[in-house]
Amino acid sequence: MADSEALPSLAGDPVAVEALLRAVFGVVVDEAIQKGTSASQKCHYSIQKGAAFLGLGTDSVRVVKADERGKMVPEDLERQIGMAEAEGAVPFLVSATSGTTVLGAFDPLEAIADVCQRHGLWLHVDAAWGGSVLLSQTHRHLLDGIQRADSVAWNPHKLLAAGLQCSALLLQDTSNLLKRCHGSQASYLFQQDKFYDVALDTGDKVVQCGRRVDCLKLWLMWKAQGDQGLERRIDQAFALARYLVEEIKKREGLELVMEPEFVNVCFWFVPPSLRGKQDSPDYHERLSKVAPMLKERMVKEGSMMIGYQPHGTRGNFFRVVVANPALTCADMDFLLNELERLGQDL
Amino acid sequence: MADSEALPSLAGDPVAVEALLRAVFGVVVDEAIQKGTSASQKCHYSIQKGAAFLGLGTDSVRVVKADERGKMVPEDLERQIGMAEAEGAVPFLVSATSGTTVLGAFDPLEAIADVCQRHGLWLHVDAAWGGSVLLSQTHRHLLDGIQRADSVAWNPHKLLAAGLQCSALLLQDTSNLLKRCHGSQASYLFQQDKFYDVALDTGDKVVQCGRRVDCLKLWLMWKAQGDQGLERRIDQAFALARYLVEEIKKREGLELVMEPEFVNVCFWFVPPSLRGKQDSPDYHERLSKVAPMLKERMVKEGSMMIGYQPHGTRGNFFRVVVANPALTCADMDFLLNELERLGQDL
Repeated sequence: MADSEALPSLAGDPVAVEALLRAVFGVVVDEAIQKGTSASQKCHYSIQKGAAFLGLGTDSVRVVKADERGKMVPEDLERQIGMAEAEGAVPFLVSATSGTTVLGAFDPLEAIADVCQRHGLWLHVDAAWGGSVLLSQTHRHLLDGIQRADSVAWNPHKLLAAGLQCSALLLQDTSNLLKRCHGSQASYLFQQDKFYDVALDTGDKVVQCGRRVDCLKLWLMWKAQGDQGLERRIDQAFALARYLVEEIKKREGLELVMEPEFVNVCFWFVPPSLRGKQDSPDYHERLSKVAPMLKERMVKEGSMMIGYQPHGTRGNFFRVVVANPALTCADMDFLLNELERLGQDL
Repeated sequence: MADSEALPSLAGDPVAVEALLRAVFGVVVDEAIQKGTSASQKCHYSIQKGAAFLGLGTDSVRVVKADERGKMVPEDLERQIGMAEAEGAVPFLVSATSGTTVLGAFDPLEAIADVCQRHGLWLHVDAAWGGSVLLSQTHRHLLDGIQRADSVAWNPHKLLAAGLQCSALLLQDTSNLLKRCHGSQASYLFQQDKFYDVALDTGDKVVQCGRRVDCLKLWLMWKAQGDQGLERRIDQAFALARYLVEEIKKREGLELVMEPEFVNVCFWFVPPSLRGKQDSPDYHERLSKVAPMLKERMVKEGSMMIGYQPHGTRGNFFRVVVANPALTCADMDFLLNELERLGQDL
């Protein structure tokens, strides 16, 4: 049976929640609430959180199966929609992911968009992590179909390395949906008798009131780097991730979780004492304790920081996310050498 | 009849909404939803927005009367609670304000806390704007009673001039309520097998996932300025506001909306053509067009920026908020001179 991809994706930021809000308030929430809401979606924790905040309840979120690479299975999506409808629920939103948190998986958007189209569902794409790949001519095919999404969440503060936070919500809608959903007509803050077109004011369209002008960071960066400069960042990240993968394959004691399709490189460090012991009954239990121990050592040493996590039935493994444009092959070498040094006595 | 203070307060930031969420998830939401929710509160647009997001609906927010200075009338609060209960609703939250947006009013917290105590209601204080006054020994009496609040929202990015955004939510609760409300146990992001006490991790307690370490700004500023340095900022702001008020009183063509109790100085600029015409039938209509016109002129001139707004039955007036610690009396003089210069032909 395929993984139930309940977790992957970086979204998290209010943007993903906002998109859900948008969909909810903009589309069929009344109907849904009356009949018992059921949003069919490849679930992510920010989506469930959004459902909780909205008063829909986390039970209204259905988890769609993912394949062994973490990609949503469109056939299961169709099946879940059918099941929900049979139970009298009214599905209204599908949340697909472009670039999941752990494995960096891209959902098959064309097939998912077909399902949404057939059932009249709002398609949200959580491209918080992977959305920046659109800037690369070489790799943008990973997002084929995203042009059919009703809403897209994108975090330039992730792969593009804009300063935290810089989150965009992109909508197909041209009917001023944000204003219609969020507008509170607080005339003491959003004066209507200004000398310019107040449609340009964003204050009354968003969740927050006081907020930073985060888009300026993106605009300045884009102006400074240009399309090609940003594209180079993406392509370089892919190339460095590939370099790291090949180095991992060359070394003893390092084992890839899978061949990555993105810049998430997931692998186990198998310490000397566990090498060749794959068949021991306690192998996996012991292996899953290695990453936390190494993490403690690297933090105390102050030499580097690499994330780790369990994933489905897989025990703790390291996840190196190659995104910082200042990284070089030498950094990748250092990382692996340091892991070996820190773990040589384990 | 007293103003219906539907508007004042700066909260706006997600913090106010968070506080509502806290209250809702932590206290009586199930009951409330079943019986038809009714939150009795002095209403502010972020509170209504929060009610909308939660799926409670804006109708569940009741607006409590405020007196002519914009302060909540505790007797009306008590009356509204009674009316709500009589209708079968279950009030659960009162949102008071310390420092409203426009008038800078401080609600009588002791009396409101008494009402909340009698009825077992969660008391939230939106001190986004006025909370920093607690740092001043001279002026902190404005917040008497805030120690009885269940939750307080405070924006150091406002009166303390920390960089946007810096928002705090303070709770009486010591039972890890945030974690219980927001915890999503996303083990791929919030590892539990760390070498330090994971109770210190805030990631799983908040609304967002990826977020800036905004508290660092407050911490650094506090370290640099000390209690006394911050107190001086507050006291200086009050003193400068007082200077501005006295200057306004001295000049022809400037009319205070009321004596401020905080650093919001609200006044009309009455242009030469309207002076002495208070009895003309179109006086108020013409006066309310003056502020937008002057705002346009100052923006195009690039000389200054002063907010204006209508408020209740009062037409557009200027609101100078004296908060920037770099301001001096000379700036106040400039401001008034510039207003007179820009408006001399009106």
